[in-house]
Amino acid sequence: MQETTNEMRQKRFFLTESEIPERWYNIQAEMPNKPMPLKNPQTGEVMKAEDLFPIFCEECSRQELNRTDIWIDIPEKVREMYTFYRSTPLVRAYGLEQALDTPAHIYFKNESVSPVGSHKLNSAIPQAYYCKQEGVTNVTTETGAGQWGTALSYAAKVFGLEAAVYQVKISYEQKPYRRNMMQVFGAQVTPSPSMSTRAGKDILTATPNHQGSLGTAISEAVELARTTPNCKYTLGSVLSHVSLHQTIIGLEAEKQMELAGEYPDEVIACFGGGSNFGGIAFPFMRHTFSGLHKETRYIAAEPASCPKLTRGRFMYDYGDEAGYTPMMPMFSLGHKFAPANIHAGGLRYHGAGVIVSQLMKDGYMEAMDVNQLETFDAGMLFAQTEGIVPAPESCHAIAATIRRAMECRESGEKKVLLFNLTGHGFMDMSAYNQYLSGNLTNYTLTDEEIERQLNK
Amino acid sequence: MQETTNEMRQKRFFLTESEIPERWYNIQAEMPNKPMPLKNPQTGEVMKAEDLFPIFCEECSRQELNRTDIWIDIPEKVREMYTFYRSTPLVRAYGLEQALDTPAHIYFKNESVSPVGSHKLNSAIPQAYYCKQEGVTNVTTETGAGQWGTALSYAAKVFGLEAAVYQVKISYEQKPYRRNMMQVFGAQVTPSPSMSTRAGKDILTATPNHQGSLGTAISEAVELARTTPNCKYTLGSVLSHVSLHQTIIGLEAEKQMELAGEYPDEVIACFGGGSNFGGIAFPFMRHTFSGLHKETRYIAAEPASCPKLTRGRFMYDYGDEAGYTPMMPMFSLGHKFAPANIHAGGLRYHGAGVIVSQLMKDGYMEAMDVNQLETFDAGMLFAQTEGIVPAPESCHAIAATIRRAMECRESGEKKVLLFNLTGHGFMDMSAYNQYLSGNLTNYTLTDEEIERQLNK
Repeated sequence: MQETTNEMRQKRFFLTESEIPERWYNIQAEMPNKPMPLKNPQTGEVMKAEDLFPIFCEECSRQELNRTDIWIDIPEKVREMYTFYRSTPLVRAYGLEQALDTPAHIYFKNESVSPVGSHKLNSAIPQAYYCKQEGVTNVTTETGAGQWGTALSYAAKVFGLEAAVYQVKISYEQKPYRRNMMQVFGAQVTPSPSMSTRAGKDILTATPNHQGSLGTAISEAVELARTTPNCKYTLGSVLSHVSLHQTIIGLEAEKQMELAGEYPDEVIACFGGGSNFGGIAFPFMRHTFSGLHKETRYIAAEPASCPKLTRGRFMYDYGDEAGYTPMMPMFSLGHKFAPANIHAGGLRYHGAGVIVSQLMKDGYMEAMDVNQLETFDAGMLFAQTEGIVPAPESCHAIAATIRRAMECRESGEKKVLLFNLTGHGFMDMSAYNQYLSGNLTNYTLTDEEIERQLNK
Repeated sequence: MQETTNEMRQKRFFLTESEIPERWYNIQAEMPNKPMPLKNPQTGEVMKAEDLFPIFCEECSRQELNRTDIWIDIPEKVREMYTFYRSTPLVRAYGLEQALDTPAHIYFKNESVSPVGSHKLNSAIPQAYYCKQEGVTNVTTETGAGQWGTALSYAAKVFGLEAAVYQVKISYEQKPYRRNMMQVFGAQVTPSPSMSTRAGKDILTATPNHQGSLGTAISEAVELARTTPNCKYTLGSVLSHVSLHQTIIGLEAEKQMELAGEYPDEVIACFGGGSNFGGIAFPFMRHTFSGLHKETRYIAAEPASCPKLTRGRFMYDYGDEAGYTPMMPMFSLGHKFAPANIHAGGLRYHGAGVIVSQLMKDGYMEAMDVNQLETFDAGMLFAQTEGIVPAPESCHAIAATIRRAMECRESGEKKVLLFNLTGHGFMDMSAYNQYLSGNLTNYTLTDEEIERQLNK
């Protein structure tokens, strides 16, 4: 293992093209306790893959409920597209370590190098690919901040699919550049709620100036998929098949940590619906299940203003506001939860995916909530030491890593910390602008407020 | 050599860390006709390196006038910092080739993967490094669109230097995000013209609402460097030592083209002051000088609204508006040239570097001017086929490449085209917004207008 010197500031580890994984890791097949089943929102019956076909493409529906195959082959064409930006670098963050004066070794997996600037492309590519294979011509989805919408728009363009994206109206209006990015990739972008769906019309009739939310946008996209021939819905997080695709991150990281001659004591990721967390954590967690690395800790960093894991309730809940989706056993703040308008738009979702929720319940992982100002403090330090301006979402993982590294400084422990840098902040400079001008605030939720939102 | 298939959309070539070049290529030592000398603006005398010391650090001053050493060692520490993002990928753009239905093979060198998003870091790192070595504590510069200012701010932070950036006032106000990026890296950013310098005060006294220009911002930065102890001026293009540092691009590309089993018939780059052009072209040009590859063409793509190479005049001119810089023998539109407000802010400079100007005069390279709409048409096609939204500057190189590829389609020639993708467009989405909404225009200059500006 190469030791840090005062001069060394960064070191990157790559895989060759042939070393890029050929299979995704399906943690559902190895979990000690499987997630509880999805249920039909009308009948309460357990859902089978076929029940998901009206919404999702068939292969994704099957992957969603696949609890037997530990490894799932990455289609040749998907893997080829991965090679356009993968392997992403595993980076030893010497600069950050030195700034913190910590004995901890800090590594990050840099998913910001994808052409769309985030890890979201890892799942957009296979979702678009499977749709194309199955004769689907149109895909639809929702997006908040826009990272997922951008990734899907590009993947759809590559496979010759038409993409229709419902973007949360307030983001559509306040952050036109992400919308423009989707349009550059040829997508049709509609502010949600809109008059194009029953769900949207109902909301606008009741509340003409509704600003939109991920929950309403999902309702609209799901309705469009259901009512349009050859059109399927796609999702950028929460669901198990999305986490499955994202395991490419952790599988690469595992090989790259070997190149670095280390193994992580703690794996840290920001938490919205759980897909980037699962993506980096699940491949390492299999060694916890097997007993090979029993002591590894897995830490989800969520916003204090949307604390589903630290302060939410484990229950059956909907994925969207209108109640179109299956009922899912998840840690949730309630599907009508209205999160504060923090800049980490990708973390403003009310629920956690079913796999992560089960793992949380079973004590295999832990969660940490971080307030907005701390996340931007962390992002600033990271930018100045590592040269990469991180997305507000990624700042949560950095803040959690810094907390742990500072604990190592206290204790003198030389822990190996690995976090996932999900994306860069080039499109989020308005958030940094607010931070730099001192106008950024924290949002704290009282227990009463959480209780009230859960019971909406 | 690997042939294109309908399925293959992209292929990337990398170098290992040890293959990253250890020396820059100094074309001045091998040019058949050396550039004419720089002259003192007051006395008209030929300038020696020492004459530049009051403005630039000593090593950069020596490199500027070094016409003897063909190879210049890259300092260990600079090369180490290069490895944080280099080698940058050489990419075979199958997707673009297929969309154009051209027999040409199109390659691009992807400099957008640098942490600050452009090739500018290649020279910011050594400039900051040499300043640090020489005991300089403060650096200053000007920036228009902000790519160079961002790169210098980061490099200064790495080496513990204070950076003061004069940003063209209209950009400072209209594009706050680039300013924020520099501030994230800890730089002090001042809109120019400002009241902080004699030059700025004079301009503001004469024209209180002056919007700023690169020429005025250079005057302010040079004045600050001259009047502040331990403060040196740095520049992001035009000068010979900047092109020298940028040759890392072409030297890598040469090795990577070998991996691809090809050699470029044409090397294409956008043109502002000449440093990215020189960076990719000069290393190949040495094989033209030697007779090994006599037929290679080198094409500079400049905006039709700032056509210094295609329609400017070869003459001794100043680099800035106030006339603080040495007189340089260059193709110029006159140092008081006021370019139209195109989005490719990096290409809105009145003059071309002395090396490139001499090569142009001697017929070793050629230039092509492109109008703004054509550049964004090209950028859109590139984004949709290669997944990377290019910076407006880079769109010029893409437009020129597309023109040449279409000529190959006409003629049936299977030429190998290589262009430099200088940066991504994540920070330039306002330009794409204008394009998408149909509000983007061309700016054409009449001969009379050019004559008028030259004689200002």
